[in-house]
Amino acid sequence: MSVIYQRVALIGLGLIAGSMAHAIRRRGLAGEIVGTARSAETRAIAAEIGLCDRVVGTAAEAVAGADLVVLAVPVGAMESVAAEIGPHLAPDATLTDVGSVKRDVIQAIGPHLPANVHFVPGHPLAGTEHSGPRSGFAELFDNRYTLLTPVDGTDPAATERLRTLWEGCGAIVEEMDPDHHDLVLAVTSHTPHLIAYTMVGVADDLRRVTDSEVIKYSAAGFRDFTRIAASDPTMWRDVFLSNKDATLEILGRFTEELFALQRAIRTGDGDHLYDYFTRTRAIRRGIIEAGQDTDAPNFGRGTHRKEGAE
Amino acid sequence: MSVIYQRVALIGLGLIAGSMAHAIRRRGLAGEIVGTARSAETRAIAAEIGLCDRVVGTAAEAVAGADLVVLAVPVGAMESVAAEIGPHLAPDATLTDVGSVKRDVIQAIGPHLPANVHFVPGHPLAGTEHSGPRSGFAELFDNRYTLLTPVDGTDPAATERLRTLWEGCGAIVEEMDPDHHDLVLAVTSHTPHLIAYTMVGVADDLRRVTDSEVIKYSAAGFRDFTRIAASDPTMWRDVFLSNKDATLEILGRFTEELFALQRAIRTGDGDHLYDYFTRTRAIRRGIIEAGQDTDAPNFGRGTHRKEGAE
Repeated sequence: MSVIYQRVALIGLGLIAGSMAHAIRRRGLAGEIVGTARSAETRAIAAEIGLCDRVVGTAAEAVAGADLVVLAVPVGAMESVAAEIGPHLAPDATLTDVGSVKRDVIQAIGPHLPANVHFVPGHPLAGTEHSGPRSGFAELFDNRYTLLTPVDGTDPAATERLRTLWEGCGAIVEEMDPDHHDLVLAVTSHTPHLIAYTMVGVADDLRRVTDSEVIKYSAAGFRDFTRIAASDPTMWRDVFLSNKDATLEILGRFTEELFALQRAIRTGDGDHLYDYFTRTRAIRRGIIEAGQDTDAPNFGRGTHRKEGAE
Repeated sequence: MSVIYQRVALIGLGLIAGSMAHAIRRRGLAGEIVGTARSAETRAIAAEIGLCDRVVGTAAEAVAGADLVVLAVPVGAMESVAAEIGPHLAPDATLTDVGSVKRDVIQAIGPHLPANVHFVPGHPLAGTEHSGPRSGFAELFDNRYTLLTPVDGTDPAATERLRTLWEGCGAIVEEMDPDHHDLVLAVTSHTPHLIAYTMVGVADDLRRVTDSEVIKYSAAGFRDFTRIAASDPTMWRDVFLSNKDATLEILGRFTEELFALQRAIRTGDGDHLYDYFTRTRAIRRGIIEAGQDTDAPNFGRGTHRKEGAE
């Protein structure tokens, strides 16, 4: 593939920006990648492993002369970074972000951008439970969706160019209204994370069952929850605070359904339970058929048939 | 390893019994494996794939002359099977089960057993989301815990012999009080399954977000829930009905914690969220260090670094 942007500036060098650096290099999609991060330690690691062509000390420095700027910091840090870089953005540059929430992020970033910059908010639906500059890898976005949520007045050509970059990184790109994005993600990501954190917290907190027991006997189901409950705490704090409305709406639905199942257990209504548990299998099949998960037992953990890691 | 039982009778030929058959054969732990299942189709498949040495038509027939009988049927079917086989059990035979609940199962089975039979309830903490006679594999129990919950009066020698069989199948065996077992499993298995079913049900039921969107964008977290929510509905209906007290207790704790987090979101209490999300990381580390899960990103789904299956 050919070069799509002459200079890409990555602000924040965690899992997503690091994976973007690897994916952009895999296909030679950028002339140069410049990166920065607030933490000196992160910058030092990024420089040491050669994550970018140049690692610089400030966001203002990083964006100078860049035709694409990617904000890859926690959602709660977007506004201050936008305020810092606003005066330094090159004319006609495209600015995007990778935040998990879109409406709040658009409100936080938008006012700080000069009129001659193209703002194309984005969100790659990919990740792992690992974080930091060493956690990225080029294949993270392959066959995963990246959602772009252009705002009123965004130049369609700028959106198309960013789409080409993401497709070059392996992603399937779709456009979506920001508010609908926040609702969809509240269902597919934010509420599941909150529930997983809660379940792990409950297990950690019980006096009659020790942490050691929870850990030893986790293969019975619990361990599936612990993966997403090990995700970056700062990122997730910011997600819940800034996607408050949609998360609370879905949480309300969740507790309503949970109480109905709880009542079925209490009253011994086996038919209700059986019907509910049957219905949920179809979604799993859909996800596997759509290539968004593996059909191997237990997610194909390890190479279980050979090594017995189950 | 040498033969531990001359004839093992497997009642029910699903994932667990099927995997036991494979694991027993892997090390030659039984002279003969006889199996049966209520469904003629299951019996036909088991016979076709040679799952057992002999597949017979009834449980009464299967247990004749067996020195180990394994009840591997849903918890709600244990009592009727016990009633059927009680009069046909060989003197001095050991009878065990693999039910996910112990107190209720002990109460259901116990009264139907003649005095000259050794009853050693058990529960292998291993499984996948797949079910049926084709789903078993020899390595399912490797490095996984099997809990034995002997009741008052159980001959310690019978328990030891069964322990040796399970260890030969690759399991780590521990003994536990039945009531404590049911509480531990309510935390590590039953409540997580109920919550996963609920979350998938909520997603399936929303009008403003389509199933197709949920499926496409599931990689953002949701898909982890769908695996255990695809487990056998009959098995899980029975688990919740028979481990009612412990499940309701843990569910009560869960909703209490969830409401506290919900309030933190509503009031914008970021510190509460951050502290909670930080605490839950330690449990994940413990599970990985105990060899009960993989540290590979996303459970090592597929071979992501090569094929990009994330």
